[in-house]
Amino acid sequence: MGVGKDVVNRFFEAGLRDDIQAAADCFAPDARWIMAEGAEPGTTYTKAEIPAFLEKIIGLRKEYEAKGITLEYGELLEVQDRVVLEFSVLSPEGKVLDRAVDLFTIQDGLIAVKDVFRKA
Amino acid sequence: MGVGKDVVNRFFEAGLRDDIQAAADCFAPDARWIMAEGAEPGTTYTKAEIPAFLEKIIGLRKEYEAKGITLEYGELLEVQDRVVLEFSVLSPEGKVLDRAVDLFTIQDGLIAVKDVFRKA
Repeated sequence: MGVGKDVVNRFFEAGLRDDIQAAADCFAPDARWIMAEGAEPGTTYTKAEIPAFLEKIIGLRKEYEAKGITLEYGELLEVQDRVVLEFSVLSPEGKVLDRAVDLFTIQDGLIAVKDVFRKA
Repeated sequence: MGVGKDVVNRFFEAGLRDDIQAAADCFAPDARWIMAEGAEPGTTYTKAEIPAFLEKIIGLRKEYEAKGITLEYGELLEVQDRVVLEFSVLSPEGKVLDRAVDLFTIQDGLIAVKDVFRKA
């Protein structure tokens, strides 16, 4: 497995077990997490802001789970310094509510950019 | 150059010289072009609908050019059957108005899916 896929997997696994510190540790010191939504374009979180944002995102995932909404992830694709991950948001009935792409830039084995794009 | 990058390059080059037929020929018979915008999620055009849609898109590009709005493309990245292309929409002053990702799926040397994701 490439170093990029490895750190991205570690990030998601840490998030799934609510380990905010371990998830945040997957980011480089000058990392940016650029959401699909918001100005700039895309609201941008720095490394220092990522733990609080992760807490919010994990809370959102639990709200989704409580409603039976699931996330379906594609295969991690690694090319040069990028890792690409498609995912879909599915209703309890399996209807596709949204689709998105995470585009990670990897630097020294850590996530330098998590850039999210979606359908809109 | 991989077969995926090759057909994606041919598609963009044909579009830039307003050659709608050559651009449409880059798509597989059962191709889908899924926009970021619209229901489904993402308004979806079939191979038969692609020429008329290309004409619209080329018209839009010319409106952009007349206003001094430019598109800045990243490097084509090919991995497995996918080609990934980031691009930005820039104002005449160089301000980033929007950013997006084209995710192409390649089949038998043709574009099977052009899946567009954006900031929103």
